[in-house]
Amino acid sequence: MKVDGTPYRSLWWDTDAEALQIIDQRWLPHDFRIEQLDSLQGFASAIKDMHVRGAPLIGATAAYGMALAMRQDPSDAALQQAWEALNQTRPTAINLRWALNRCRDLLLGLPLEQRGQAALSLAHEIADEDVEINRRIGEHGLKLIQDIAAQKSDDSPVRLLTHCNAGWIATVDWGTATSPMYHAHDADIPLHVWVDETRPRNQGALTAWELGSHGISHSYITDNAGGHLMQHGLVDMVITGTDRTTRQGDVCNKIGTYLKALAAKDNNIPFYVALPSPTIDWTVLDGISEIPIEDRAAAEVSHIQGRTDTGEISTVQVTPEGTSVSNPAFDVTPNHLVTGLITERGVCAASEAGLAALFPDMAPPAATAKVSANV
Amino acid sequence: MKVDGTPYRSLWWDTDAEALQIIDQRWLPHDFRIEQLDSLQGFASAIKDMHVRGAPLIGATAAYGMALAMRQDPSDAALQQAWEALNQTRPTAINLRWALNRCRDLLLGLPLEQRGQAALSLAHEIADEDVEINRRIGEHGLKLIQDIAAQKSDDSPVRLLTHCNAGWIATVDWGTATSPMYHAHDADIPLHVWVDETRPRNQGALTAWELGSHGISHSYITDNAGGHLMQHGLVDMVITGTDRTTRQGDVCNKIGTYLKALAAKDNNIPFYVALPSPTIDWTVLDGISEIPIEDRAAAEVSHIQGRTDTGEISTVQVTPEGTSVSNPAFDVTPNHLVTGLITERGVCAASEAGLAALFPDMAPPAATAKVSANV
Repeated sequence: MKVDGTPYRSLWWDTDAEALQIIDQRWLPHDFRIEQLDSLQGFASAIKDMHVRGAPLIGATAAYGMALAMRQDPSDAALQQAWEALNQTRPTAINLRWALNRCRDLLLGLPLEQRGQAALSLAHEIADEDVEINRRIGEHGLKLIQDIAAQKSDDSPVRLLTHCNAGWIATVDWGTATSPMYHAHDADIPLHVWVDETRPRNQGALTAWELGSHGISHSYITDNAGGHLMQHGLVDMVITGTDRTTRQGDVCNKIGTYLKALAAKDNNIPFYVALPSPTIDWTVLDGISEIPIEDRAAAEVSHIQGRTDTGEISTVQVTPEGTSVSNPAFDVTPNHLVTGLITERGVCAASEAGLAALFPDMAPPAATAKVSANV
Repeated sequence: MKVDGTPYRSLWWDTDAEALQIIDQRWLPHDFRIEQLDSLQGFASAIKDMHVRGAPLIGATAAYGMALAMRQDPSDAALQQAWEALNQTRPTAINLRWALNRCRDLLLGLPLEQRGQAALSLAHEIADEDVEINRRIGEHGLKLIQDIAAQKSDDSPVRLLTHCNAGWIATVDWGTATSPMYHAHDADIPLHVWVDETRPRNQGALTAWELGSHGISHSYITDNAGGHLMQHGLVDMVITGTDRTTRQGDVCNKIGTYLKALAAKDNNIPFYVALPSPTIDWTVLDGISEIPIEDRAAAEVSHIQGRTDTGEISTVQVTPEGTSVSNPAFDVTPNHLVTGLITERGVCAASEAGLAALFPDMAPPAATAKVSANV
């Protein structure tokens, strides 16, 4: 999407430098900085320390990391080392594993001299696939927004609420949760987006930056505010992204998503989750009991980064000195709170049958059999 | 309660200075500063700009503000002027109105020469009543915590979750939601308190400061985290305060309370609200439709105050420049999500009948009649 009128993707390969260029998102929304990744360590740090974030973008970045490693040393040992170094950066990100395994599976079958070029081609392919997947998610989500707009009896805009940043800078382009928004905006449907701040890392500021850059009306709100807005009829639809969706449609996403899903249910507001199929974890059924939740550093909660009145990026501590902090980074929204899943193949129920019907080629045989039995 | 071993109340009258001393809570948890209020303007600013916060403390502060005004000028005009100046500081605070009206009702009936002394005596009385009310709330809440402790089959502490700061510094002493915690701690019941950060103003940092000063084990968490903790059996009970409770037991409290109540309900966790009876608004039945919600300044959300690594109190902006912000300060938790109300007279159901049975002397005749009919 555009930044100050210039179209960007969130990463691109620099042929001259033999390196990946990324938007270093730690400085957003205050500073727009490009960073060059030209070592395996650089890639690992960029993923672990969240220079890049968002499931699809992490996957694509990891694929380019594998490509860089193979172009520097195409041996099996280097391949394994790169896989391990990148795999350990983010325990919860299913896309990361998916992209790394896809790279390894291809490369192990190739002679050494072909690996450098093949790895780069595959990384490009993964990046382009992500853009196409997100474009399709946007088209399917657009229909839902059009339906809401058509049913409005007043002249209010369609009011969407989103949590975290499942935006274009969390993907290669378009975003997942934001793709329907960009499509609806481009289709001239009046929109207003409530943007959850999303503590502790305030990814809502990224979403606000994105939407503002594209000209979409929005308001930044605390994570506490959404329930009140829903109670008072000020939200027509919730759309979030997901880091990992189980085969029965439980949604693991940024901490706090579950609370918004509860409020949507309590107020009869549709709660949709936009997801590219690579974030479906077909090996997991029950998200609450089976998905381990990453506990992140206390400083993410106790300290907050922002811009001072003199324009510098600075960090302040909000807690009393020495306070104990707990920082679970994700939660699981059980499928019964999810109205539907917006995928690149269409919208389906958040259920084993719903997912298996859309993805019979990916679902395990048991799930597909259940669908057949139901037909 | 104690600060560094010294017992404090959150306000006290200084006879020599003819002024009120308060803890200026804008600097907590980083700095412990005492402020002297010796003008009506000073009182109004202290309430409006949240040097003091929390329904009971606002009420007591306003009473001392009336006393100061009467000691400086006991005329009817000055009385009315003080009432108006103090009344307009916080639109949602029912205690403020209650305390101001109580002062005005007494003072209007007195000759001018008695007003200065009578107003001060009444302010003392209101402050002492608050301490006694909160002590009793703590005793009743203690029984609930003792019951949970008695039912535990493992050796985990009783894990409580609280939102905002309904602590001793939001009252004259003890606090409301915290009073059962202080009582339980003093009764040697092992406790751990999950302290919601409570954006936008991060009152959780005050609660963490309080609990830490008293030696109660606690963890500071984002407002997003509570649902996840409840899903995983890590919360035994929620206790919050309230700014205003309707006669059917709907609870208006700091924004985000409603989301925690939904999560508690979804996970079969008791959700209690601690309240002194002056915060019951007998004129309001349906909190969601009848209570106007204060929209506060955007800067509360867009900017965050904390301590820099050089020890200064500083403010940083977290949102992109120019982002639109919406900042509803309270929400309403409907009574069906509330397990019970902990009052100075005991614990009751969050219902018209429950409240009227405990407070037949305060409930309007219609509510009392319903109770009689049900008996």
